[in-house]
Parts: sequence; C-alpha cells; structure tokens
Amino acid sequence: MKELHLFYAPNIEETHALSEEESTHAVRVLRMKEGDEVWVTDGQGHFYNGTASPGGSGKHPECFVTIEEIHPWHRPWPSAIHLAVAPTKNMDRIEWFAEKATEIGLDGIHFLDCANSERRVIKTERIEKIVVSAMKQSHKALKPFVSEMTRFRDFIAQDFEGDKFIAHCYEQSDIDGSEKLFLFDAVMKDVPTLVLIGPEGDFSIDEVRAAHSAGFRSITLGESRLRTETAALMAVAHMNLKKTAL
Amino acid sequence: MKELHLFYAPNIEETHALSEEESTHAVRVLRMKEGDEVWVTDGQGHFYNGTASPGGSGKHPECFVTIEEIHPWHRPWPSAIHLAVAPTKNMDRIEWFAEKATEIGLDGIHFLDCANSERRVIKTERIEKIVVSAMKQSHKALKPFVSEMTRFRDFIAQDFEGDKFIAHCYEQSDIDGSEKLFLFDAVMKDVPTLVLIGPEGDFSIDEVRAAHSAGFRSITLGESRLRTETAALMAVAHMNLKKTAL
Repeated sequence: MKELHLFYAPNIEETHALSEEESTHAVRVLRMKEGDEVWVTDGQGHFYNGTASPGGSGKHPECFVTIEEIHPWHRPWPSAIHLAVAPTKNMDRIEWFAEKATEIGLDGIHFLDCANSERRVIKTERIEKIVVSAMKQSHKALKPFVSEMTRFRDFIAQDFEGDKFIAHCYEQSDIDGSEKLFLFDAVMKDVPTLVLIGPEGDFSIDEVRAAHSAGFRSITLGESRLRTETAALMAVAHMNLKKTAL
Repeated sequence: MKELHLFYAPNIEETHALSEEESTHAVRVLRMKEGDEVWVTDGQGHFYNGTASPGGSGKHPECFVTIEEIHPWHRPWPSAIHLAVAPTKNMDRIEWFAEKATEIGLDGIHFLDCANSERRVIKTERIEKIVVSAMKQSHKALKPFVSEMTRFRDFIAQDFEGDKFIAHCYEQSDIDGSEKLFLFDAVMKDVPTLVLIGPEGDFSIDEVRAAHSAGFRSITLGESRLRTETAALMAVAHMNLKKTAL
C-alpha cells in the first residue's frame, strides 16, 4: 500500500503554503516537484487536495499549494471526548498516551496539577508535535486541543457542557455514597464527555470531594489496576468505543 | 498509598524460595529482614502470603519464603483472550504493547510471521520480562502466555476452541462476501476469543482468504486508522471490555 503523506497547515486557506518545517520535508525529503499532488489538513476538520509549487532557497525551501478541492472531515464520534490527566514523572509515558489517544480519536488533552502530582511542569510544545504527527499518521483532519498544565481546583471550576467523570480508587462511602459507575456504561453517545485521571498516587480525597461538588461523578475502568497513562488511554477507548459503536 | 511489592516465583510451592534475581531485589533493594511479610505469585492463578528468610552470600543472596496463606485469583474476564500480532520493526512499540496488554488483562500474546512482516525474529525473553513486571505491577496472578514467532499458515492451522477473528483493511467483497463485524459486538462474554492483527503493510489477501478457510471471521476496530501496536491493544481492550462489562 503506497503511504499517502498528509501535511499539516492550520492556515492553509490564507497562506496557500506549508510551514518551513513541512516545506523542508516536502522539498528535501519527499523531493516534491512543481505540480505534484499534495494532501493537507488544517487540523480543524478539512482536508485540502491540490498541487505543490516548490520555491525558496536551498537553505529555506518553501512549498506553495494550489488548492483544488476541499473535503470536510467529520469525526466518527458524534460528541466531544476530553481527557484530563496528571502527567507521569516519566515523560515518555505521557507522550505515548498523547500519540495513542490521538490515533484512537479525541477532542482535547488536558494536564492537571494535583496534590499528589509527580510532575508540576510539562512542555506542551512537544506534546503538540506528537499530536500533530499522530493526527497526520492516522489520517484525521482534527487536531486534539492540548491545554497547559492547570491546577486541579481551577480546572474543575471551568465550564464544561456535558458529562463530567472522575476516576479514583476511594470507596464511594468515603465520598458521598453515590455509586461508582462503569465508564463504558456511563458514557452517552451524543453528550460530550470529560474524564479526569489522577497521578500514580491517586487524587486526594479532598480533590475527589471537590470534583463531586463541581458536578463530577465517580467512575471505574474495571477491576484491572492500571498505570496512570494506561488508565488515561483506556478512558479514551471507553469513550470512543461507546460513541462510535453502532 | 504504600506500594505493595509482589514477587514472581512460578515454582514457589516446590522451591519455597525466590529466584536469584528476585532474591537480590528483596535483600539488596528492599532490604528485607527475617520475618518480613512477602507476597508472591506463581503467575498461574495464585497469590502466596508469607514471611521472608534472607540467606545466601553477599554476592548471591537468597530469599526463602515460609508460605502462610494461598489466595487463588480468578481473572475478571470469564473466558480466554488471545492476541496474535505481526511484530513491528521498532521493538519499543511491540514491547509497549506487551506491557499495556498485560495491564489491561489477557491470556496469550502470539507473534506472527506474515508475508508483509517487517520483523522476522523476536526475542521473547525480553517480552517475558516485560509481561512479568507488568503482571506484578498490576497485581495480577496470571502471567500471559508468550509464544515464539510462528509462520502465519502454521498459526492459523492450530486448534483454538473459541471464536477466531482477523482484522484487515480489504473489502469483504474481495474475500468471501461475508460482512465485516465490529469486534466489540462480535466478542462473546463466555467464549474464548482470538484476534489476529497484521503488519503495517496489512495481511496479504491470500492470508486473509486462508484465515477465512480456517474458520476466522473478518472484524474491524472502527473507523480510526491505527498503527499495528495500537490496533493490537485496542483489540485487547474490545475483548476485555466486552467480557468484563456487566
């Protein structure tokens, strides 16, 4: 199977050109010539089919694009999927999560600074690069939104139009006596869903209680004991599967 | 939360001791003393609770275990989950799959040598190590079986008592006209399930046809275009989720 190369150019409709990085890849690596076919996505729901016009200097190649067709892309999941996670100490694990979650498909990745967080700072530029390449590799036209690290209390205070869930290991009797839902069962096909996944040391019980007060409901991902990044990916899988299953 | 350390000793009932590697960890790293509590699994469905008796020399520490209680562990999924995959060229990706699949929970990981395989040789000792540490880390008492690389034709000819599925990107009209099932819908809670995932270049159409002749049915994991290792993990997620969901 010939591999289709998809370029990312968020402002292609205005610039009619690829970024310097993408231009370099097109001209230097793929050796594109005048008139070669190119596929571009703006990461906002559109694929653009057109022809390439390499230009610029050897040091600073440019690749202009003559757009011939615009193809809107509708994500297979009918309502938004958002996942907020306390990043692991080991960045590889959270970068892995960002790549896989983007392949499976979601709308937003959010990072939480929690009481038991092992990492308080995260370079979202690297996560952005990973998310963009996973979007291109999996032929999607929607770049997940990646938000900066946010303090837990500030994050749960934000407005979210949809179902809000928090995964934790405490007994519900220690929270508010409500039942802990199985995420897959709780997810609604047509209602946006947000899930919070805590650090390796779990959320503090005060954080869980605060989330409940803010309208979050407790969920479980099943009986398996999962690492933070695995739990985050499985939460995305539960949401994506429930929303896309017939 | 205090981290419980689980040791792996497949023959604990005969040896009443940990392996040299596990003994070294117990004595040198965890500095266990005579009478300290230890938890051990045989990876065959049992947890053993007992006390440690460090011994041996400084160079070759030994850790004997006096077993006090045996706790049988029943996996949360009621019927077997087997995944066969053509390993990726990049070993990190397949090692990552082995770790995550074990955390989620399955019974067997099998490696396929296919027409379009990018890797014909795989060191299963490394995969065994990863699977053992993921089993211990996720507090399971069942070590997934890891089988050596097997030629595709030989693998599909093996007996399997359960439902057999193959994931591929061909049109069903090019195979045998049967419908392509959505894996999550096709999985039965109480029937063992085996899924085959192909290499980055997909199975050859002849391989898919041969699998159908051998009783495999075609499945899809959904509309997302997934890398080999992501498809393999999602297949495990579909099976585990369907079998464990209430």
